[in-house]
Amino acid sequence: MSTTYQKLQAKLAEVADLNNAAAVLGWDQEVYMPPKSGELRSRQLATLSGLAHDMFSSAEMGDLLEQLDQDGSLDPVQQANVRESLRDYRKSACYSRDFVEKLSEARSDAFQKWRKARQANDFGLFRDSLEHMVALKREEAALLNIGEHPYDALMDAYEKGARTVALKTLFDDVRGQLVDFVRQIAEKPQVPDAFLTGHFARDKQWQYGLDVLRNIGYDFDTGRQDISAHPFTTAFGSNDVRITTRVDESNFRDMLWSCIHEGGHALYEQGLPQDQYGLPAGESASLGIHESQSRLWENNVGRALPFWTAHYPSLQKVFPEAFSAVSLRDFYRAINRVRPSLIRTESDELTYHFHVMVRFEIEVGLIEGSLQARDLRDIWNDRYKSYLGLDVPDDNRGVLQDIHWSHGSIGYFPTYSLGSFYAAQFYQQAVKDLPGLEDDLAKGHSGRLLHWLRENVHAHGRRYSSEQLCERITGQPLQFRYFMDYAKRKYGDIYAL
Amino acid sequence: MSTTYQKLQAKLAEVADLNNAAAVLGWDQEVYMPPKSGELRSRQLATLSGLAHDMFSSAEMGDLLEQLDQDGSLDPVQQANVRESLRDYRKSACYSRDFVEKLSEARSDAFQKWRKARQANDFGLFRDSLEHMVALKREEAALLNIGEHPYDALMDAYEKGARTVALKTLFDDVRGQLVDFVRQIAEKPQVPDAFLTGHFARDKQWQYGLDVLRNIGYDFDTGRQDISAHPFTTAFGSNDVRITTRVDESNFRDMLWSCIHEGGHALYEQGLPQDQYGLPAGESASLGIHESQSRLWENNVGRALPFWTAHYPSLQKVFPEAFSAVSLRDFYRAINRVRPSLIRTESDELTYHFHVMVRFEIEVGLIEGSLQARDLRDIWNDRYKSYLGLDVPDDNRGVLQDIHWSHGSIGYFPTYSLGSFYAAQFYQQAVKDLPGLEDDLAKGHSGRLLHWLRENVHAHGRRYSSEQLCERITGQPLQFRYFMDYAKRKYGDIYAL
Repeated sequence: MSTTYQKLQAKLAEVADLNNAAAVLGWDQEVYMPPKSGELRSRQLATLSGLAHDMFSSAEMGDLLEQLDQDGSLDPVQQANVRESLRDYRKSACYSRDFVEKLSEARSDAFQKWRKARQANDFGLFRDSLEHMVALKREEAALLNIGEHPYDALMDAYEKGARTVALKTLFDDVRGQLVDFVRQIAEKPQVPDAFLTGHFARDKQWQYGLDVLRNIGYDFDTGRQDISAHPFTTAFGSNDVRITTRVDESNFRDMLWSCIHEGGHALYEQGLPQDQYGLPAGESASLGIHESQSRLWENNVGRALPFWTAHYPSLQKVFPEAFSAVSLRDFYRAINRVRPSLIRTESDELTYHFHVMVRFEIEVGLIEGSLQARDLRDIWNDRYKSYLGLDVPDDNRGVLQDIHWSHGSIGYFPTYSLGSFYAAQFYQQAVKDLPGLEDDLAKGHSGRLLHWLRENVHAHGRRYSSEQLCERITGQPLQFRYFMDYAKRKYGDIYAL
Repeated sequence: MSTTYQKLQAKLAEVADLNNAAAVLGWDQEVYMPPKSGELRSRQLATLSGLAHDMFSSAEMGDLLEQLDQDGSLDPVQQANVRESLRDYRKSACYSRDFVEKLSEARSDAFQKWRKARQANDFGLFRDSLEHMVALKREEAALLNIGEHPYDALMDAYEKGARTVALKTLFDDVRGQLVDFVRQIAEKPQVPDAFLTGHFARDKQWQYGLDVLRNIGYDFDTGRQDISAHPFTTAFGSNDVRITTRVDESNFRDMLWSCIHEGGHALYEQGLPQDQYGLPAGESASLGIHESQSRLWENNVGRALPFWTAHYPSLQKVFPEAFSAVSLRDFYRAINRVRPSLIRTESDELTYHFHVMVRFEIEVGLIEGSLQARDLRDIWNDRYKSYLGLDVPDDNRGVLQDIHWSHGSIGYFPTYSLGSFYAAQFYQQAVKDLPGLEDDLAKGHSGRLLHWLRENVHAHGRRYSSEQLCERITGQPLQFRYFMDYAKRKYGDIYAL
């Protein structure tokens, strides 16, 4: 191996050590940190990320990367690592220190105002800060100058290579096909699901969640689950990948599917190649691909009939009062009930994409300049009426519900839908590649599926873009029809369409 | 404030951020880290401590310190911060990179050999590594060249200013007075303590420990308690100070006094001045002073009659089967039973110092060259016979019991005894300064004592040396007679001497 490449690898591993140390501090902050230690923790996190940034954007790193970019002796994985790192390096050079500081101030202002607005249930208190944030994000898009549309440059942070024009096509399909399909469902008699509400003891839920995680292959020797206000996955390297969940004793669904969702994210991180630590080939491909892994396990596996054929008897044993008199089919239909709702994070797997579509349309409009931040409440409420048929009763259940914009995370939301669409296309391919897969799943064996994901997705890290990965795995670029076929098959059966 | 001083403060705070981040990773490693994440964690810890070391020992730091050392405009606290930091800086400059690497290799070799020797219960397997380690520590003492005796240089890492000659005087007193006193105790009838053994439910112990911690003033808003194999205290700044304990259901003493002991360490850390973050005045004075705080709460408060006058009724309520028929006085006598034993960490508060004395004598002999590492088993067993009257049955209960030497920590043990001796002298002063203190304690009120410790000990951080601090607080240097007076009063009563 070239000594220059070894130098690069050692330096990037040091940057990763700092970022992973910060991730440990971030994890602790969410799960165990004492209530009054926040200010101290913030300064420690700022120092770690500042040092990681300085180290990554140093002239020495730039020299190494430029030198290796001309080195013909590297193997393909090494080439990809150099190419991706150099891309990141050049991108970070677009940000002046002055602009980074302005953005950081705007973030902390917007986050505070958003919290105040949430307390008062009044978008008016967030409006000015959001307007300022949008102006800065437009400036950022111009600085980065990536893709054809200014929104492309912002999406690049979360989904490299994503293009506004392609997402518009996807959401045209959502609008054209899924909206209509959900309308057909709404005309059918609703599936009964009253038995899903009741009392589900904390300890039993906790134990059942751990059992399900073990069953899908999450490795507790290199991971653990804890409790936090909002479930999340964090990794400090592929040998330490942690997930969190929360328990609501009146609603067992909240914890169970958060376990499977975060478990899907974690299986990805645990499957990234250890020998590529700190290098792009050791990192996840994009947020969309990450979400494809969580959604595939949560929905394509975890809300499907084969999985529950295997697991429903044990669930009935754990909660006999709730389920002993409920058939597998009735349970399966109930957990897949479709019902337009106001809150994105509580929505079903079909109407979920209407929530994302609204946000995507708004973000593109804001960045193009065709929509104004000050008008967002009305715009939001109008689109919820037209896509979901719902009247938004107040701002907290409307335009103030998500934290993302207060962080300046514009361009993030589409990755949620991309995740589901990739998941449908990947899962369809897995079923094709692995004869008898769903029979396996109905016996509680998901090992072959995990192995397939390890080989086809996890092993490559960030070596390929999302689109390239999709083509390699399925022979085609991402297409909405895989999701739509899946939806029609599943919900056509559930609602007898 | 001088801008140069501000620069120093900012740089030292960054070093502290790195060290404190490493402390978070270290805490996590002991309490929550998954079993197979150790290798990954080691590399992240090595990167953090390497960066902290590079930052602290940089030429820029040296320039700042030398410059400020000549600055006549600094106030006394600033002067102390510069003086102490410059001392640390110059000390770190004594170590060549080559020597640091040799020491680090010797440590990891010695630790592995010690573990193997423990498994085989055979000192022979550790002998060569220990011999090599001792040779390196003699070399280190020569490099540092601090004090009059080579052992002084090694103690300096744990107890700045400690001198072998002064410790010899202290241990002469231990040998001359305490050994004789314990012999007198041994001739009296033993106090009954069978009721201390039984079943003490985990949850009840845990809750009682938390209640006691709250009662002595440990702040759970800037701290927390968790479970680990060996109890410890760690701080990431005075606003995040964490302790751990362990629970043995057959022995409630293990957890309860570990809570009070670690609580005492933690009260010290929580009392260090926040505005001196990263500076010597924001750090603990020495290991001896640290231990004085844990021992004062554990023994002078927590094994004394006033404390149990307040707390015994609640303990009886929690464990009625064990204690409802046992009087306060019988309980108090039982928890203070004196009995020579083989293992340092399990010994009572008097014979404890014989264990330390043996180690001190051995360490001084090794560093002087008057004793040889290869003869340690025999030396150890001889001294346990003569000071404790015990035959050592095997190496695990003898010369292999402590981890310290395998880490190269030579010069550490004396700080345990110094802690108890300082505690006795400080507590005596507190009783003098605070009329009615023990009446307060008998009512469960320790707030005045904590306030006194905050003002007299905690507030000063590392501004004064241990000896200076002792003189400031008690008007005298450290003297063994305070400990001996305390022992005679307390155990004279318990054993009717």
